Amino acid sequence: MDAVRAKIAGRTLTTGDRLPSIRAFAAAMGVSPSTVVDAYDRLAAEGVIHARQGSGFYVATAPPPLALGEIGPRLDRTIDPFWVSRQSLDTGEDVAKPGCGWLPADWMPTASLRRATRRLAKADDTLLTEYGATRGALGLRRLLARQFAGEGLEIGPDQILLTGSGTQAIDLVCRFLLRPGDTVLVDDPCYFNFRALLRAHQVDVVGVPYTPYGPDTERFAEAAAAHRPRLYVTNSALHNPTGATLAPQVAHRVLNIAAAHDMTIVEDDIFADFEPEPSPRLATLDGLSRVVRIGSFSKTLSASIRCGYIASGADWIDALIDLQVATHFSGVSPVAAELVHAALSDGGYRKHIDMLRRRLARARGDTAARLKPLGIVPWLMPRGGFYLWCRLPEGCDAAALAGRALRDGVVLAPGDVFSVSRTAAGYMRFNVAQMAAPAVYPALGRGLADAMHTLPTF
Amino acid sequence: MDAVRAKIAGRTLTTGDRLPSIRAFAAAMGVSPSTVVDAYDRLAAEGVIHARQGSGFYVATAPPPLALGEIGPRLDRTIDPFWVSRQSLDTGEDVAKPGCGWLPADWMPTASLRRATRRLAKADDTLLTEYGATRGALGLRRLLARQFAGEGLEIGPDQILLTGSGTQAIDLVCRFLLRPGDTVLVDDPCYFNFRALLRAHQVDVVGVPYTPYGPDTERFAEAAAAHRPRLYVTNSALHNPTGATLAPQVAHRVLNIAAAHDMTIVEDDIFADFEPEPSPRLATLDGLSRVVRIGSFSKTLSASIRCGYIASGADWIDALIDLQVATHFSGVSPVAAELVHAALSDGGYRKHIDMLRRRLARARGDTAARLKPLGIVPWLMPRGGFYLWCRLPEGCDAAALAGRALRDGVVLAPGDVFSVSRTAAGYMRFNVAQMAAPAVYPALGRGLADAMHTLPTF
Repeated sequence: MDAVRAKIAGRTLTTGDRLPSIRAFAAAMGVSPSTVVDAYDRLAAEGVIHARQGSGFYVATAPPPLALGEIGPRLDRTIDPFWVSRQSLDTGEDVAKPGCGWLPADWMPTASLRRATRRLAKADDTLLTEYGATRGALGLRRLLARQFAGEGLEIGPDQILLTGSGTQAIDLVCRFLLRPGDTVLVDDPCYFNFRALLRAHQVDVVGVPYTPYGPDTERFAEAAAAHRPRLYVTNSALHNPTGATLAPQVAHRVLNIAAAHDMTIVEDDIFADFEPEPSPRLATLDGLSRVVRIGSFSKTLSASIRCGYIASGADWIDALIDLQVATHFSGVSPVAAELVHAALSDGGYRKHIDMLRRRLARARGDTAARLKPLGIVPWLMPRGGFYLWCRLPEGCDAAALAGRALRDGVVLAPGDVFSVSRTAAGYMRFNVAQMAAPAVYPALGRGLADAMHTLPTF
Repeated sequence: MDAVRAKIAGRTLTTGDRLPSIRAFAAAMGVSPSTVVDAYDRLAAEGVIHARQGSGFYVATAPPPLALGEIGPRLDRTIDPFWVSRQSLDTGEDVAKPGCGWLPADWMPTASLRRATRRLAKADDTLLTEYGATRGALGLRRLLARQFAGEGLEIGPDQILLTGSGTQAIDLVCRFLLRPGDTVLVDDPCYFNFRALLRAHQVDVVGVPYTPYGPDTERFAEAAAAHRPRLYVTNSALHNPTGATLAPQVAHRVLNIAAAHDMTIVEDDIFADFEPEPSPRLATLDGLSRVVRIGSFSKTLSASIRCGYIASGADWIDALIDLQVATHFSGVSPVAAELVHAALSDGGYRKHIDMLRRRLARARGDTAARLKPLGIVPWLMPRGGFYLWCRLPEGCDAAALAGRALRDGVVLAPGDVFSVSRTAAGYMRFNVAQMAAPAVYPALGRGLADAMHTLPTF
């Protein structure tokens, strides 16, 4: 069955083509004719091929377009890596979203954003109407370069490419480096959209268990040796979903393993500004030799103004620009880059971040305290950020709980959407900034009572 | 050589692996050992493999990342499909750009944009800070649906997906439909970035000669039968680069050929608003059954505010949303969609477009008149838009002329960047709105004198 599917996927066989005779195919595959009969029958049952009386089997349909997940933001949608995104993005404001990955609007620096917008209305005609340079606004790239230098990563603004978003930045690097069938390492658990993105690249994804100090380095080394991965995608600072912090020894060892196996690392630094003080970074230790640093401003400034960046070795930037021109024409919107630059330069931004850190520390404590009586316990208490990765009571299935809570108007983020190995059915990620809606704790209580007695639907 | 390259690309052979012995490989390929020796030697000269004394040949390096074009926006960069983009986007304002694909900033509706921006500063917190729905702002989708209905294409706003740009919209459809090795038809000549984009998808691109009435339908039918293409990418309204208009009979015939060969069509409608009255559209005739309509606001409103759209059959939209979530998380920036919506709804927009059409008609006439004494003659006079596709004097090579003009601070768009078959070395695309800079005509004059006596560098 796989061999036929491969021929169809590779277009060796296309709609209307006759399949090899059972006898010929059995001989070619070194299996018995009855095995081939069985495979053809099953493929026919799936509608991939069909039999014509007395004349053999034929390919039934053109290969289907790339289907990444199940369709829809519906209540009954399968809980796959898209489930949380679609439910969080497409349900109304009446729905509570402790499963989502952003702060409520009234936690964001809206005064700075409004000032930046008013200033934009007076910008020159060129900024308001033209594509802008392929690397994106120099001012914002300089600001980022200064910030990186403060963290010990000395690079010029020419080593920074602005992109339409952090996700697009990772996607661009993946398009540059990966080919279908390559292997990529991720943390297990990891941000669910890494899984969705890598699926779009048709690569094999291998998970490495994540510890409170970073990836399990023995398993990381084993996976590197066994699978010859081309890439490792991670976020070190306030790891998503666990909130863990990479330990220096682990960072050093991961870099050495990557070097030994000629592996590139994408380090997504999107939560960096939430850290009380900077933790070890792969990009900084490595000096952007084999680590590509990715980031955006969606978590601390605005997710509505789309802007991300790639910082990498100078030799890659030009090739990445070509790829961005080909697939997006220009990269970041100059208007968006200007708004981000203005809001970040605004005297209020640093104060806003300090306020956010204090407010989030309080919310982490409050959430942990209110989850405790429900038997929901954080795997660790993160140093910063808005996620708590929690173990559910023994026997409770997170997907069942999430399905139940959705009917009560609460979007949760069940553990297995983060887990390549699907070993996180007993975990849930909570966004502590989104727990204030009155529906949340009652829905959890009711859901737990139900879900404890439900078989996993995953 | 191809067989070894394929093994390396497919990772059957990776860095450090030993190649098959010359005798074994010759037998496997059914060629003589001397042919294999020759191939191995040439691959070694290219650095793909290297010989170890007495022990055979080994794979030298990991497969190189996807290199789409030559590097850089340098003067000496090869004139490939990226050349015009990089030179237009990355050279300063002191450089004249008759080769670029946009209007000067002072031709754009900046008053409307400033009004929209001032209004944005008062928008609610959610709009300024959150990701927004996966399809993009409903208001803008409704406005588009009404506009399409006025053109005879009746679809609901749910059949419209907003994207980060028109190019990204095409890219998303290509990612959904294409696999490496597929064949795609394009017009010859066609917009150079279609070529760059399709190269990023690693597909085979086949050009169909373009006539003043649309693609040559006989050649189109032949190519469809011979290559079983999965997709045809075109722009019907004011075709880029020729400015031609699709004739109704050609449109009808193209759709029938596409239907007979189960081909999807992407119709990029980016120049639609420049038409004096609407010309036949594949999407309208077909009712979005096998045609996907793409567009953006970069040409008439702002290229700085990035926003595009896909209109397609309802069954595809959900899968395209998943793909956009995976690769960009949310799609269009809500702030960008709001600015576009406000500026399009502004009473001034229609007047602006009317003014643009008159101004462009004048500029087309003026440009043709001033090019004539240089022996540069339009292939046809378009009904609208800002391009003139011109034949250069006999014996003049457009790439040589473009290279020469760049040294004089003038970016041109030489014919072969638009031509898959590279049969347009005698053509140049001029943007009539960008001809006012004093450097342009003198540079053309000097360049023509030189280029007439230069061998093609292409």
